[in-house]
Amino acid sequence: MFKTELCDLLGIQYPILQGGMVWVSYNELCAAVSNSGGLGILAGGSMTADELREEIRLVKEKTDKPFGANIPVVKPDSESLVNVAIEEEVDIISTSAGNPKRFTQKIHDAGLKVIHVSPSPQLAAKAAEAGVDAIVAEGIEAGGHDGFEEITTMALVPQVVETVDIPVIAAGGIADFRGFVAALSLGAKGVQIGTRFAATREAQGHPDFKKAIIDAGPTGTAITGRGFGPTRSVRNRLTDQILEMERRGAGLEELLKMIGTGRSRRATQDGDVEEGTIYCGQIAGMIRELKSVEEVFTEIIEGAEVLINELGKVSTASR
Amino acid sequence: MFKTELCDLLGIQYPILQGGMVWVSYNELCAAVSNSGGLGILAGGSMTADELREEIRLVKEKTDKPFGANIPVVKPDSESLVNVAIEEEVDIISTSAGNPKRFTQKIHDAGLKVIHVSPSPQLAAKAAEAGVDAIVAEGIEAGGHDGFEEITTMALVPQVVETVDIPVIAAGGIADFRGFVAALSLGAKGVQIGTRFAATREAQGHPDFKKAIIDAGPTGTAITGRGFGPTRSVRNRLTDQILEMERRGAGLEELLKMIGTGRSRRATQDGDVEEGTIYCGQIAGMIRELKSVEEVFTEIIEGAEVLINELGKVSTASR
Repeated sequence: MFKTELCDLLGIQYPILQGGMVWVSYNELCAAVSNSGGLGILAGGSMTADELREEIRLVKEKTDKPFGANIPVVKPDSESLVNVAIEEEVDIISTSAGNPKRFTQKIHDAGLKVIHVSPSPQLAAKAAEAGVDAIVAEGIEAGGHDGFEEITTMALVPQVVETVDIPVIAAGGIADFRGFVAALSLGAKGVQIGTRFAATREAQGHPDFKKAIIDAGPTGTAITGRGFGPTRSVRNRLTDQILEMERRGAGLEELLKMIGTGRSRRATQDGDVEEGTIYCGQIAGMIRELKSVEEVFTEIIEGAEVLINELGKVSTASR
Repeated sequence: MFKTELCDLLGIQYPILQGGMVWVSYNELCAAVSNSGGLGILAGGSMTADELREEIRLVKEKTDKPFGANIPVVKPDSESLVNVAIEEEVDIISTSAGNPKRFTQKIHDAGLKVIHVSPSPQLAAKAAEAGVDAIVAEGIEAGGHDGFEEITTMALVPQVVETVDIPVIAAGGIADFRGFVAALSLGAKGVQIGTRFAATREAQGHPDFKKAIIDAGPTGTAITGRGFGPTRSVRNRLTDQILEMERRGAGLEELLKMIGTGRSRRATQDGDVEEGTIYCGQIAGMIRELKSVEEVFTEIIEGAEVLINELGKVSTASR
């Protein structure tokens, strides 16, 4: 049993959210997470409005539990995506990459909850002012798009907790019961887990993409785009090239031209793990096999109960 | 009350070590930490062998509790420093920056314990093979010299715990009871705290150096030297200059010439907080006032007991 105020807010059993990962978080993963007691989140970031509508309907065929959709505010069609999420009645909209103020009122008027992903206490404060219901405080260890601020989860979460009055969800560097309890210790009321769920059977994605996460190891990811839009992915031929260009001081235009578009899709859908971008968190080093969503949940919850019990013994142990 | 196996190993009351910070960790800080129940550690990194001898003697006048000295293996006079630490009978030698194998046997033959600071599971495994008694797993959020691997504490600690069979001490991003309990949750048997102790009354250091830590805020530190020797310090005129040079792809020679030597001393001793290097962890954002060592200990231990009690309630709460 695990219950925090976040469970009440979102209507879920365990305070565990699944990150809305582009090309990865589709109906099967989303429904499996919600059916396991967490909050599944569809990746609006890699869907058209029509695709999102279809995916929402497919989730609803597979679960009657709450679930959500992530919508990057800066995405050109973000307004259509928000409209679809409202029309098709998801329970929670997670906004990221941009100011949530643009949609907060509309989402609340429709009776949905909104949570916003923030990489710094300053941006978290801004989102709280905009009226969001909860904040995902995401550290630089997270996969995909990261904050320019490069604040780690360990440093970020307690500062966001001290900054805002709404529940904080920790993200970045969390893949198991240890990370889960550590996040709660830092003051979070729940966690958002990405990479661990990307390496599940239910996640969308090419087998070679999932294998790349499992094989990454402790030092297998890198941040590229520090100057213009930091993202974390598995080191491969592409990241080596980008990092080399960055080291020699290549300009933005040259970098963007080389990177082009569609790199994430290329790795995740097509399995081109050398020339595509394998978005992946640093905690990949702890991920050594493909699991089912249910296994991931069971291990986190059971492990956390044992761990918290052990912490209790440490704190009362007499000399 | 807090007791882990690390307390037995090192003969201390609380599993809290104070990092051996150059120009900061002298006899007053070291003795205060040990007298508070933790392990004070002198900064051999900024001392000559004669200075270290004198500092050890001064600590012994102020406490009869165990304490240690940190000695960077790559420092040209590291062997003399180790010899002095053994002759003057510190209890623990903490090695860093280099392979501890060079000194492990000698330290053990003298009846002292040795712990080694590692930024990656691979280097931790190497240190464990060399026979050290415990590992400090230090994440990229830590101040001063960091690993090229840039692994965060959240991702690093559980991987080191799974890699070695000796106690792991978490470092990087820890300044209060939240970080302390989070570290124990990640599998560490204790913590090493730097920056929080640098901003105490007992720490050596110019008032403006301590003020710079307190004023840093959540995004006030930066990593420089990514290509040749990453260090984390407070952003100032100097780091801005270095970062600008790095962005335009400046070569190693040009960078080293500009940086020169003595920058840390200049900030820490002389208080030149614009042209000196203010080594400082990212957790500075959580540090908002100068405290005494005793206050820091009391707040961590009391806060941790309350927090662990609350975690127990979350894990058994029924729906």
